[in-house]
Amino acid sequence: MINVAVSGLGNLGKYAIEALESTTDMQCVGVIRRPESLGTRQLDLRGVPDFDSAESMERAVGKPDVMILCCPSRKVCEEAEFYLSRGYNTVDSFDIHSEISSTVKRVHEFAIKANRASIISAGWDPGTDSVLRAYFEAMAPVGTTFTNFGRGRSMGHSVAAKAIKGVKDAVSITIPMGGGRHSRLVYVVLESGETLSAVTERIKADNYFAHDPLQVCEVADSQALEFVSDASHGVLLERTGGFGSVSNQQFKFDMRINNPALTSQILVSCARAVTRMAAGAYTMIDVPPVHLLAGERFNIIEKLV
Amino acid sequence: MINVAVSGLGNLGKYAIEALESTTDMQCVGVIRRPESLGTRQLDLRGVPDFDSAESMERAVGKPDVMILCCPSRKVCEEAEFYLSRGYNTVDSFDIHSEISSTVKRVHEFAIKANRASIISAGWDPGTDSVLRAYFEAMAPVGTTFTNFGRGRSMGHSVAAKAIKGVKDAVSITIPMGGGRHSRLVYVVLESGETLSAVTERIKADNYFAHDPLQVCEVADSQALEFVSDASHGVLLERTGGFGSVSNQQFKFDMRINNPALTSQILVSCARAVTRMAAGAYTMIDVPPVHLLAGERFNIIEKLV
Repeated sequence: MINVAVSGLGNLGKYAIEALESTTDMQCVGVIRRPESLGTRQLDLRGVPDFDSAESMERAVGKPDVMILCCPSRKVCEEAEFYLSRGYNTVDSFDIHSEISSTVKRVHEFAIKANRASIISAGWDPGTDSVLRAYFEAMAPVGTTFTNFGRGRSMGHSVAAKAIKGVKDAVSITIPMGGGRHSRLVYVVLESGETLSAVTERIKADNYFAHDPLQVCEVADSQALEFVSDASHGVLLERTGGFGSVSNQQFKFDMRINNPALTSQILVSCARAVTRMAAGAYTMIDVPPVHLLAGERFNIIEKLV
Repeated sequence: MINVAVSGLGNLGKYAIEALESTTDMQCVGVIRRPESLGTRQLDLRGVPDFDSAESMERAVGKPDVMILCCPSRKVCEEAEFYLSRGYNTVDSFDIHSEISSTVKRVHEFAIKANRASIISAGWDPGTDSVLRAYFEAMAPVGTTFTNFGRGRSMGHSVAAKAIKGVKDAVSITIPMGGGRHSRLVYVVLESGETLSAVTERIKADNYFAHDPLQVCEVADSQALEFVSDASHGVLLERTGGFGSVSNQQFKFDMRINNPALTSQILVSCARAVTRMAAGAYTMIDVPPVHLLAGERFNIIEKLV
């Protein structure tokens, strides 16, 4: 039995607890939360005890084998270092693509020093999409892969829109246009006295939005925002390519999913995998697929290969 | 530079040479063929020297790092043992699903004894489809995966149809019916004096065909058979599933390809990977995806993750 703990009880933490409950080889021994939140959201905790620190968790239930970091990407390095140094393996869904490589290098040092393993960017993009892009290249080395996101709510763009002057609240929807290009549909609640046209111009000028077609729509309040999108998301990965005289090898991966639920499930599968890796920091392309699954290797070969 | 040799110059061997030619980190140093074939099919050899034995190849070009076995599945064990014991790593596209597990166990012993590595069943099914089935389970542990093959020519069923009494030559096409079920469309050239209805009954009685809807069509001769199907094939892998309260996570992988060309490309990517594996026998679910690709790990992370 692999003992797993969760850091944070947002959407990811909540689904991670539920995904752990569905396994036969892992159990969730505790959740670390802010002291002021302790004991709230009993339904999301599903009977798992919550603690305000690693120390108090260890006193009550011992050291877990793995900590699933359900924190914002900006806190991943710090939390990974903290929990690795306490002797836990860690997994996270760090999603700032341009900083994955440097994050792996930093966390690798912490992991080697602690003789533990860490899987960085365990989610769907980065994550399983990255793995598929790797296989697509291995299957057709010459060609172009398009990653078409959506339709779905983009967390990064929603946060960026909320930070714009005159915007009280916002949700940004990503809509695929083909060829790996996207348009943005942003729903905003305006601060009083602001006009939609002025706010639209400011959003258009923001680096997050400047490069894509944009439409901004006003809604009355935050409650109305909750009705413009649920947690559904998706991706269409496409590659057409070949090698030498071989052309027109065509690959498509199409996925329609509950976004945080899938990320949490992948975190949980990677929590299993990380206990099977040598000390160091990894991304999902470094992890043998068989490590993600419960059960004996030869049973998996007989069932799936 | 990884030195690779190829055993056999059928469709797979021919495409493997071409796929190797398209890499920057591998080169094809020789092809082992039957003595009576030596020097023929210059176009397929693409300037690569052919030899009638491992001994003569080693005398001329030295020991390769990897041997790609482009032989029938039934000969894989024997050839793997032979080349592993000579100190080569090996890859093959062994495709008898029910015997993969036992083949891995047997070849593992040869590989450990020789301190070399072997990747078994490196193709698309078994192979990359197996890997995708593993990821689909890791992403949605509860659910059903359907593997829908085709439309394309089935080598196994074509060989089985040719072996039926009264059949001079045959091609069997696999047509997907959904839900992982398939119908068979068999084109036959009859022996003189045979009737289509008698031959159809015999094909229907064969274990290869007894479980699926079947249609048998007569064509005049083997030349006409060549016009009923090319090398195109494909698969649609589908999974709908979830965990706990999460349902309706939907995954689809759709691929349309030149069949032997894709198998050979995957063999070549696995020839690269096998040089990065510890001694032993593996299938593709045991291989970290990053090992399949040329170049530095951190460059790959920056480009694909």
